[in-house]
This record gives sequence, structure tokens and C-alpha cells, in this order.
Amino acid sequence: MAEVKLHGRLLSPFVCRVIWALKLKGVPYEFVAEDLSNKSDLLLKYNPVHKKIPVLVHGGKPVCESMIILEYIEETWPQNPLMPNNPYDRALARFWIKFAEDKLVVAILKLFRSITGQELENAKKEILEILQTLEEHGLRERNFFNGDNIGLVDIAFGSMLYWMQVIGDVVGVKLFDSHKFPSLHTWFENFKQVPEIEENFPNRDEHLVYLKHRREQWVASD
Amino acid sequence: MAEVKLHGRLLSPFVCRVIWALKLKGVPYEFVAEDLSNKSDLLLKYNPVHKKIPVLVHGGKPVCESMIILEYIEETWPQNPLMPNNPYDRALARFWIKFAEDKLVVAILKLFRSITGQELENAKKEILEILQTLEEHGLRERNFFNGDNIGLVDIAFGSMLYWMQVIGDVVGVKLFDSHKFPSLHTWFENFKQVPEIEENFPNRDEHLVYLKHRREQWVASD
Repeated sequence: MAEVKLHGRLLSPFVCRVIWALKLKGVPYEFVAEDLSNKSDLLLKYNPVHKKIPVLVHGGKPVCESMIILEYIEETWPQNPLMPNNPYDRALARFWIKFAEDKLVVAILKLFRSITGQELENAKKEILEILQTLEEHGLRERNFFNGDNIGLVDIAFGSMLYWMQVIGDVVGVKLFDSHKFPSLHTWFENFKQVPEIEENFPNRDEHLVYLKHRREQWVASD
Repeated sequence: MAEVKLHGRLLSPFVCRVIWALKLKGVPYEFVAEDLSNKSDLLLKYNPVHKKIPVLVHGGKPVCESMIILEYIEETWPQNPLMPNNPYDRALARFWIKFAEDKLVVAILKLFRSITGQELENAKKEILEILQTLEEHGLRERNFFNGDNIGLVDIAFGSMLYWMQVIGDVVGVKLFDSHKFPSLHTWFENFKQVPEIEENFPNRDEHLVYLKHRREQWVASD
């Protein structure tokens, strides 16, 4: 079996996605910690376009962008499928993954970078609308986005909801009310109890300290 | 064979992508013209989240988002493959598709919406950097992005480069200099000569008139 290496930082929710997928597939890998304030030559060589983590290196060949890495993992190691079997359900899965990437990631970053009260309010409103769309259209009374088993869409949103909650704590807003979003809330609890997710969840306290520090830097640079 | 319908507008570069893929696959379809100023109930039912075209309806089931529709077409009709055979090359193809969607689409919209000279300058700079990245890293001396044959990455960028050029004419900037971007320029000429692309290319004059009108509305609403 060709060697698998994952370049990243443990506190990145995007790296987290890759760790979860590798664990769910039972693929052994070596973790290569990257210092983002001093990017390694290897990282710049592997991802010359974006210069970002995560990068998965399989048999010496790099794959970049977290959700593309996850589709690569799914297609390379077919055990414990994380995508539905038929093209139509796969298209639906990709629809929600794109929704996570285009809408939720952008809105969470906006929240993190909000300086004024108005900016904070706008970002909060945007996130609540996204959660409402997920609540109404995403889960359709199933345990996971694809049905009974965890898959790539759950990983895509699970990492983002975790990140959103930590950032919510940093900026002082509560977003994920269980009364407003009952299906989403039940789903997230189920998700966190999947053993491979639970055992490889980021350390929330460390993450909070890290993001508070980053937020202070951001506000100071304004 | 289940019925295939495509909801869209002929002048949308995103709809164009789907038409090209269906033609390259030789899949017969019915085109349902949508009036975006008065969206049909069917469109709102098929795409309740984004309420946007294109929507492909196959056997009564809708697929939304142009590049997701293209992956669905590829997986549903295997003739004339538009994606590489192995997972690694497929990951590379998806990397460039994501680059088109995240970077180029956003920069072209920014150009179209620029009001001040400074905004126009910034959007132009952003687009030139994107084209430079494509020139350096994307094609790697091959005829098409995947190698010798046209594929989804070519369709993704081909539609966008066409759109970018028309919008460049509307706002009065020239972006796609053949001396600055020789590989990209040769690729685009090859691309446009593929019969299924050439025969189903948008009408540039009509598109120019349409986008000039839209641009006037945008400037007036500022």
C-alpha cells in the first residue's frame, strides 16, 4: 500500500474533515504538522496555487482542497462507503457539499471578521438563514444526510457547525438553538457520537484559546 | 430512456455548460426556456434553495448547479467520457473546476459590477492573476485540461472565458491577451473548434446587447 501523509494543523476544521474520513475508512497515515506562519517548502511545492492545508500525499502525489481530498479518499478506498451508490443521490450529496462550501464557510468567516455590531448582526442573520435552509431541506427526517450512515455531507457540515460554535463563543453570539433547529440539532448529536468522529474531535478549549488570539489580532489590524 | 429536460436561458454561460455536455454525450433533451424576471413555479419547485438555472430534470428528478449537473451527466451516460479514468486525475480535474467556481466566477462578477475606476482596476488585476495561474499550472503543455480530449474542466473554463470576454467588451477592458497567455489562448481556440462546442456556442452579439442592458441597470441602481 502506497504511503499516505496528511499535511495540516490539528485545529483546522478543514484538516479535521480529512482525518475523520481516513479514520472512517481505516486508512493509516502519517500526520505532518505545518506551521502556517512559516510554510514548509514541501507545502508550497504540493499546493503552489493556494499554499494551504490540508494536503493529502498518497504515494508521493499531492491532493489539495479538503472536500476534493474526501472524494479522492472515497474513490481510492471503497470500504465503508461515504457517498451514495447511485448518480442521483451523489448529485444531491454534492449539492449540499457545495452549499456548505459556498454559503456556510463564507458566512462563518464573515462572522469571525465582523468588527462593528452591524457586521456581526449581518453575519449572524446570514448564518441563521443557512441553518434554516438545512433544517428545512437538508435532512428530510433521516439520521444522516445520505440516509442511515455517515457520509461526506455529514463530515462537510459537522466540521463547519463545530467551527461555527467555537467562533460564536469567541465573538459572543449563540447561533445553534436546539428549539429553532431540532432536526439539525439531533443530527449533530448523532454525528458527534460516531466513534471515529468522537475519538478524533478537535480539542475545543485549545481551539477557543487559539481563535480568541486570532480574533484579537484581526480586530487590532482593523 | 427517461425523459431529459433542461430548464435555462440560452445566454447563460452556466446553462451553456450543460448544453455542451449533453451534446458531447449525444443525450437528447428538451429545452425549457425560463424567464428570470418571472420564475416559473416548476423552477421554484425544482430548485427551492437557490431558485436558479440551470436545472436538469431526468425522469422527473431535478439536479441543480451547473458543475454538479455535469458530474451527474458524466456518471449517468458513460459514453464519450468527460472525466479521467483514475481517482488521482479526477481529483486534479475537480481541483481546477473548484478553482473556476471559487475564483474566476467571483472575479468576473466583480468586473461586471465595478462602478469606479478603482473597482474596475482591482477586478481586472484579480482576473489577470487567475489567468496567469491557469497559464502556469493548469494546462501543462496538453491540448485539453485532462490531456488529449475535451472534458469537464475545459467546459468549466471555456464557458467562463467566453463570458469574461463579453463582459470585458461591456465594461471596456481587454483581458485575454494572446501574448501574455499563449497556452491558454491556444487551448481556447482548440476548445471552440470542437464541433459540439462550435455548433452550440452562444450568440455573442445578442449576449453583448443583453449584458450591456444589464450593466446599465446595475450602474443606474448604484
